[in-house]
Amino acid sequence: MKIIVDLLGSDKGAETIFNGVIETSKFLKDLSFIVIGPKKIIEKINIDNDLKNRLEIIDTEEYILNTEEPTFAVRRKKDASIVLGMKLLDNGEADGLISFGSTGAVLVSGLLIAKRMENVERPALTITLPTNKGKMILLDIGANIECTVEILKQFAIMGNIYAKETLNKQIPKVALLNIGSENGKGTKILKETYSVLEKEDMNFVGNIESRDIFNGEVDVVVCDGFHGNVLLKTIEGSVKFILTNMKKALMSSFLGKIGGMLIKSPMIKLKKTLDYKEYGACPMLGLKRVVFKGHGSSDEKAVVSGITSMVDYINKDINKKIEAKIEKGD
Amino acid sequence: MKIIVDLLGSDKGAETIFNGVIETSKFLKDLSFIVIGPKKIIEKINIDNDLKNRLEIIDTEEYILNTEEPTFAVRRKKDASIVLGMKLLDNGEADGLISFGSTGAVLVSGLLIAKRMENVERPALTITLPTNKGKMILLDIGANIECTVEILKQFAIMGNIYAKETLNKQIPKVALLNIGSENGKGTKILKETYSVLEKEDMNFVGNIESRDIFNGEVDVVVCDGFHGNVLLKTIEGSVKFILTNMKKALMSSFLGKIGGMLIKSPMIKLKKTLDYKEYGACPMLGLKRVVFKGHGSSDEKAVVSGITSMVDYINKDINKKIEAKIEKGD
Repeated sequence: MKIIVDLLGSDKGAETIFNGVIETSKFLKDLSFIVIGPKKIIEKINIDNDLKNRLEIIDTEEYILNTEEPTFAVRRKKDASIVLGMKLLDNGEADGLISFGSTGAVLVSGLLIAKRMENVERPALTITLPTNKGKMILLDIGANIECTVEILKQFAIMGNIYAKETLNKQIPKVALLNIGSENGKGTKILKETYSVLEKEDMNFVGNIESRDIFNGEVDVVVCDGFHGNVLLKTIEGSVKFILTNMKKALMSSFLGKIGGMLIKSPMIKLKKTLDYKEYGACPMLGLKRVVFKGHGSSDEKAVVSGITSMVDYINKDINKKIEAKIEKGD
Repeated sequence: MKIIVDLLGSDKGAETIFNGVIETSKFLKDLSFIVIGPKKIIEKINIDNDLKNRLEIIDTEEYILNTEEPTFAVRRKKDASIVLGMKLLDNGEADGLISFGSTGAVLVSGLLIAKRMENVERPALTITLPTNKGKMILLDIGANIECTVEILKQFAIMGNIYAKETLNKQIPKVALLNIGSENGKGTKILKETYSVLEKEDMNFVGNIESRDIFNGEVDVVVCDGFHGNVLLKTIEGSVKFILTNMKKALMSSFLGKIGGMLIKSPMIKLKKTLDYKEYGACPMLGLKRVVFKGHGSSDEKAVVSGITSMVDYINKDINKKIEAKIEKGD
């Protein structure tokens, strides 16, 4: 198996991503890499002969910033790492691509260069979140801000397959994000989607309110990219707000300060559980090729975990399973 | 001043709400009350002559449940406490009404009986949330799930006035909830609303992402009721998830357990800060009459705080200020 790793555009620089590649190569011995980034930086890092034989470097220093308008940037920056990588992927030179750079750029280059699967209306960006009972998959988290019933139905189908394969659930429970759990709640589109999903060949369990997604009662939560994005960023803001205020609360009393010292180590562990950025990388479902997006702030460990998830995804041939299911017209 | 208090439909029963009335009457000596609920329960509770002279009881045992379809229930249950109360309010028998019962029932009876202000397209349900620098107002949190540009503009105008009067901000900063902070982000409606708000006579500071609302950089966040509801319930779920997992994390080590005991008291205080249910009650902006909705799980203290907020709102004549601003066609 060969994968493409985009070294550029992450918060921690090309070295961190490349170090993640080195670490992964130590235990995934059959994996070859095409890394895209500045040759002069990569060549300064010591690597053993084993990796050398499995490594190809595409030299570029250009990349797309988070602040750039992605469609414009993808069209103009022909030498941007993600553009070069997506072209190689499209040409069949590798089995998957992972990037830790601009989400918009990954989305747009994925759509324009790697392209959608036949019959898939819109690809979806997913994320895996912790729950009280394990993990769940949320999609879409920002690729498509306005969705039709058909698009949401396809998200449910894709999410269902992805959950079945990666969460090890025989029959994943699929739910629709809504503002009430009863049927008949929400916008016109959500009401229609509810009726459509009831007839689908999946375990559709109805609506779910955002307060309940952490209970672990469902495995897949389907929503449009606007709602998914609001939900995700609200979790991020809430976690930060709570931890900041906890620190303040503890520092305000003597016993609190001592208690704070005693709980430091379990709290650090908890913070990691809560931080979805630590959860490696997630696929963009519905593209012809395997494309993974990792968080921009990923450290070496998160890069290893992201690459490993992608290898697992490729091994399980999930894209093919999605394509088959969507093509059936289900 | 005279206010109507709906004693029914809350999680903690009519006694709790009535005890809140008693407590409030002790320090708000000029306030008279019409309480609506079961006379046999109220009459069992000891009250002094001072309150007796300021108290009127409307006897009913009927109320609207959270699980009922509110429009249907409001039309059918003529003796439901909220229906009786809203009629009295509409007849001018009191200066405001507060309920801790079904949100849907308050909304629908407010719309059908107390009615919208002239020129207000849709009333908005607000909530006051804690931030790192104080408080902010979020609206709408569930009254209107699909909003036009004009409706969102009116929410911004109403929220701006409400924040000016109750957060003591001379020039509140008003922002639009979106999935990116730059102009040009989000749905078609949000893009248009952005342009419209830029021209309004208010301190419109642009888009805000949900992760940033806790920073305290803005005073009013405007969104449609679907997004507001998702945001609010995500905060609720996140807080619960974090505190549950924190407990688990602490209980998993010996030092953690001791630390946990030491931090108990500051943590209880923090939990109260984070629990928006503790923030008393919030108005439904845009109705002809003053209507406040408190959380269903309000305890006596929260009832006192809710009534006090409403009295402050009435004293400041905020409804009149909103009416004047909206009528101007601004």
